Amino acid sequence: MKSVKSTPARSTSSLALFGGILISGLATFGAYKLGQHQTLLNVPADVFPQGSTTKLGDISPPTYCTDEELSTAIGEVKKMIGGHKVFNTPVEIESHGTSEFTTHAPKPHQRPKYVVYPELTEDVVSIMKIMYEYNVPVVPFSGGTSLEGHFFSTRSQSVVVDTTKMKKVIAIHEDDLDAVVEAGVNWQDLNQLLEPHNLIFGPDCGPSALIGGMVSTNASGINAARYGSMVSNVVSLTVVLADGTVIKTKQRPRKSSAGYNLAGLIVGSEGTLGIVTEATVKLHVKPVKETVCVGQFATVSDATNAVAQIYRKGLNPNAIELLDKDMMHCINYSGYFTREWLEVPTIFFKIGGINDIVVKEQVKEIEKITSKNNCHDFLYAKNDEEKEELFSARKNAFFAILDYGRNEIDPNVRLWVTDMAVPLSKLPPVLAKLEKMVRSSGLQSILLGHVGDSNIHFDIFYTEETKNKCEKIINEMMLLGLANEGTSSGEHGIGNGKRRYLELELGTETVDLMRRVKFALDPKRILNPDKIFKIDPQDDGEY
Amino acid sequence: MKSVKSTPARSTSSLALFGGILISGLATFGAYKLGQHQTLLNVPADVFPQGSTTKLGDISPPTYCTDEELSTAIGEVKKMIGGHKVFNTPVEIESHGTSEFTTHAPKPHQRPKYVVYPELTEDVVSIMKIMYEYNVPVVPFSGGTSLEGHFFSTRSQSVVVDTTKMKKVIAIHEDDLDAVVEAGVNWQDLNQLLEPHNLIFGPDCGPSALIGGMVSTNASGINAARYGSMVSNVVSLTVVLADGTVIKTKQRPRKSSAGYNLAGLIVGSEGTLGIVTEATVKLHVKPVKETVCVGQFATVSDATNAVAQIYRKGLNPNAIELLDKDMMHCINYSGYFTREWLEVPTIFFKIGGINDIVVKEQVKEIEKITSKNNCHDFLYAKNDEEKEELFSARKNAFFAILDYGRNEIDPNVRLWVTDMAVPLSKLPPVLAKLEKMVRSSGLQSILLGHVGDSNIHFDIFYTEETKNKCEKIINEMMLLGLANEGTSSGEHGIGNGKRRYLELELGTETVDLMRRVKFALDPKRILNPDKIFKIDPQDDGEY
Repeated sequence: MKSVKSTPARSTSSLALFGGILISGLATFGAYKLGQHQTLLNVPADVFPQGSTTKLGDISPPTYCTDEELSTAIGEVKKMIGGHKVFNTPVEIESHGTSEFTTHAPKPHQRPKYVVYPELTEDVVSIMKIMYEYNVPVVPFSGGTSLEGHFFSTRSQSVVVDTTKMKKVIAIHEDDLDAVVEAGVNWQDLNQLLEPHNLIFGPDCGPSALIGGMVSTNASGINAARYGSMVSNVVSLTVVLADGTVIKTKQRPRKSSAGYNLAGLIVGSEGTLGIVTEATVKLHVKPVKETVCVGQFATVSDATNAVAQIYRKGLNPNAIELLDKDMMHCINYSGYFTREWLEVPTIFFKIGGINDIVVKEQVKEIEKITSKNNCHDFLYAKNDEEKEELFSARKNAFFAILDYGRNEIDPNVRLWVTDMAVPLSKLPPVLAKLEKMVRSSGLQSILLGHVGDSNIHFDIFYTEETKNKCEKIINEMMLLGLANEGTSSGEHGIGNGKRRYLELELGTETVDLMRRVKFALDPKRILNPDKIFKIDPQDDGEY
Repeated sequence: MKSVKSTPARSTSSLALFGGILISGLATFGAYKLGQHQTLLNVPADVFPQGSTTKLGDISPPTYCTDEELSTAIGEVKKMIGGHKVFNTPVEIESHGTSEFTTHAPKPHQRPKYVVYPELTEDVVSIMKIMYEYNVPVVPFSGGTSLEGHFFSTRSQSVVVDTTKMKKVIAIHEDDLDAVVEAGVNWQDLNQLLEPHNLIFGPDCGPSALIGGMVSTNASGINAARYGSMVSNVVSLTVVLADGTVIKTKQRPRKSSAGYNLAGLIVGSEGTLGIVTEATVKLHVKPVKETVCVGQFATVSDATNAVAQIYRKGLNPNAIELLDKDMMHCINYSGYFTREWLEVPTIFFKIGGINDIVVKEQVKEIEKITSKNNCHDFLYAKNDEEKEELFSARKNAFFAILDYGRNEIDPNVRLWVTDMAVPLSKLPPVLAKLEKMVRSSGLQSILLGHVGDSNIHFDIFYTEETKNKCEKIINEMMLLGLANEGTSSGEHGIGNGKRRYLELELGTETVDLMRRVKFALDPKRILNPDKIFKIDPQDDGEY
């Protein structure tokens, strides 16, 4: 970019008072590198720093509260919302500090100092006003099921804001196909309430996940092939910002072009931009009739080719789940199921429709397509009981995996659960390379794929001894995905476990833009610090 | 919020040099109201202003280039990208200054000074670097079909950046159901290219609309009931930011949880945050079989009740278009069609499926539901010819309206075309009130509703003499919609025609947050100034 030309000053009185002193002040402050004073004049320094992005190298480290400030802040919180909502018992601290699901355990000192349980949006407003005033790092907490260290207290003096007590279902609008819920509502509980209305909530991730956390990670699950991930299922959000300002992103119509899509920005922002307290979510009509069919294929390519052709025929199954031969072996091994499966790549389909005729027509078409793609065996459920039985193989896969691993590999074996996605057409070569990679390492893996949206969980067994080797393969897996136009996360998010991949995936400028947005909404960097990308030039850790 | 307590200074050397002087400087600069110096210290002023939002009252007016600076800037643009891409002929200026579609004509002086036609993303980068350097207001221009003054040059010295020459379809990935296209690609041209692949692009708005503009207004159209609006159809965007930084928001998988959903933020931002140069868009499979059916109802409530029940049965038509009795009268009046329609509220459905059996089952179910909701007449197309004939009544509605208006009202009659949306359940009372409102004014109206997503066009005929009366009713219509949990725009956007409604709809804080995001990405406020919300405290105009 060219240097700034000399032009007439717009506001000479400000210049006289302001110009030179501010520049030297900023320089001392470890600040943005400003050019000549003309640039400063044309862009009031009161508004924003230069450019459209914020580079890590151009910022100073954040400054958080002292111990004394933290306890003053907590005292004020107790006064505002009630002392019974504030905890610092070891049990509370520990249960909000780490997670048994994660492979990226936090360091022992990375624990919150307090856990606060707001019960109303107004409580969150009060908390955030005080936290903002005293520069307290705040870690929003929901179901605690995330896998990439999303809720670790990386900063000492952290306060966890746990929204699990906010679990009111405020309204169900049957004819508008939406519901208004608080952030702490569990998606399965919501589905139970919707049952008599023949409605369902689309995304279906881990059983304990809550709406607030699902919004924050843009979660999805098995049904996403049909209903999309959270970003497609949120109409509007109520969000408390870093400084305690509360906003609602939209009104209730499912479609709106009124102003910025702020809900779209908040979904997937992992609590770094605000705390979600309420959501208006879309509902879907429960299929009047639904069946399950299963295709067992010669190769993974046969399976993914079948999926592509099924879509190209205009079919849109409610779920398309791919399990590889190792996963099918675990299922057989577990003995949970009456059926003995072929140990080959297998797809479980859910097919829904307005009546049996429509469902049957789809099954016929799917069978035709699979048979052209080396499908050894095609089964379909003829009644609800068979449907449950068939899909239970997919649903209980996780327990089958653990059974196998503990008995056949090591009683203390763990599974490195991760996710990635590549375009469907890239899946066969990527999976073939991954399998080869794991085999040559001597480790064992299983594949569970939401192949309808080409999002895969290629999970690897490891023990304390093989953890480093496993980590190395996980790293190679991510790089392989990125080299194939992939994403380092299809549904779990970045947290602090995958930060290193984000710049490789999207480029430094894109991450610098995210950092700009973060700093704009949270200038003190108090909301879930160190997640998704670095906010501190002195942060040299990868977790 | 409480006042800031006195706490130990973090950086006393900076304080000594910096504190008091900066505060007085800022005060003079018409800037953020800073509290005590402690707050300043804890949040480095180099990073961002206080809080999470930007209030109109707290900012100073923007400063743009002088005539001399503009001509230097244009000279540099010509040198960088070639003089043959830069125009200032009266024809170019006029064709980029206003629009025959809009009711909010710009003032005569609101015309751009130059029109620049980039041919590559790199051209846009060069242009924006120079525009940023010289503080030139930039108005992005696409198909020019927007209705709310989205592309008016409200600032003198504006330069229009017209992306219509960027019309390469870079890739069609059949099996991944996506296409990579430049911003200037017309959606109908894209569909033509997709025809041999049996694929379609979902959104279908005005025939001359281009992808870039459709992204910017989050456009949709008739098919949105099935395929969603642009926000549901964009995978990734390449965007040139205000300072010329170019970013790509995501990789190509349809599902990703990797970092902020920046594409979601850019969609619908009306060129105020960046210039879209390329998009990866989702494709859909063309229905193997499709038919059209039409239900003619006793009342609007009957029609909307039928729609709600159709959805509740798990049916998902490809289009659900409601035309009121006045609209049906225009269609009969025009004589374009062989059929004489009942002049009652009428819904046109498109029903698709994998084969004739599946289509027929759906039609049967829809007929059953409509007959329970006072449907006088239910027709369906038995072949492709009948299908075209039936839907042509909906498709040519606009011409029928103009015919009627010009012959029966005034040869110079115009139609105030606007859109709004309310939740489906609120539609009958809202439409009843609207009709009463228009009738009592003596004006005439027609209703065209994308009722599948409860987005309506309630358009009113007016002449020069009745324009004020018409504007008053349009205003009341918006307020009525907002009072019913509605949005002031379902698909057209805000531009500068509907800014006044945005705060009423979403609250001041939400708009202040939008302004914060805008200022963060575009600190000089050069990108499409004055659209969606005010960026200048001296802006007292509503257009």
